[in-house]
Amino acid sequence: MKSATKTIAVLVIFGIFIGAAWAQFPNPEKAVKYRQSVMFVIGQHFGRLGAMVKGNQPYDQTSFASNTAVIEALAGLPWEAFLVPGSDQGQTTMKASVLKDPEGLKSLSQKFESEIDKLSAAAKGNDFNAIKAQFGAVAQSCKGCHRKTRK
Amino acid sequence: MKSATKTIAVLVIFGIFIGAAWAQFPNPEKAVKYRQSVMFVIGQHFGRLGAMVKGNQPYDQTSFASNTAVIEALAGLPWEAFLVPGSDQGQTTMKASVLKDPEGLKSLSQKFESEIDKLSAAAKGNDFNAIKAQFGAVAQSCKGCHRKTRK
Repeated sequence: MKSATKTIAVLVIFGIFIGAAWAQFPNPEKAVKYRQSVMFVIGQHFGRLGAMVKGNQPYDQTSFASNTAVIEALAGLPWEAFLVPGSDQGQTTMKASVLKDPEGLKSLSQKFESEIDKLSAAAKGNDFNAIKAQFGAVAQSCKGCHRKTRK
Repeated sequence: MKSATKTIAVLVIFGIFIGAAWAQFPNPEKAVKYRQSVMFVIGQHFGRLGAMVKGNQPYDQTSFASNTAVIEALAGLPWEAFLVPGSDQGQTTMKASVLKDPEGLKSLSQKFESEIDKLSAAAKGNDFNAIKAQFGAVAQSCKGCHRKTRK
């Protein structure tokens, strides 16, 4: 929907400062909805990557790189929302144990962010086998976290 | 949650290509949930800006700029999801007329993106009155679109 004359938007995100801002959820329900919203959007874009990796859609380098860039842009957002007290209650699948182990979540989230960064780098190249392998590594980081944090 | 040694992530998004990828929603319900998710996340960050502009929170330039950067990163995402056939049905407040007028939506979305870009520029400076004025312009672009597109 961006105009053709504005094809590139360069976004600089100061992750460390954003981290501080994340604590500002008005209540636990909003934190739950926030992290679910970010995860849903990530999931949609990851699904598009998966369709190309699995051959359900033809591989298109530009589309693959664009979808990866969106995931990369979102990858740092949801974590603080998982640490909001009380956000293990209500409409969520998050285990209460997450709230007691911020360092554990940090480790899992950093693994995901690191794997996505590597996929972003691979997506700029032409080695489709490397891209497929790294897509698998990202998927494993998703599953690894879900296994440990979901009820 | 990003490490202190990695404070800056530079994300380059090729808007025009992403535009093409957006059409890949598996069904109208997913498109509705996608746009609602993006809008909810934007709303949370915009709320944090509002709290600072209105004096409910102390103004912090870094936090203000970070939250604006997140909105800027998300600003191009939701529009194609509003144009998915059938996505005026079900759990949505979108008027059916939106589907018949892609150019109208494009104009409204470009207005929003343009105003957010200007807020991002203002947020890098020290003129709080200019920031407040531009925050108001963004809010008007939100309201202007909601007025025309919501049931």
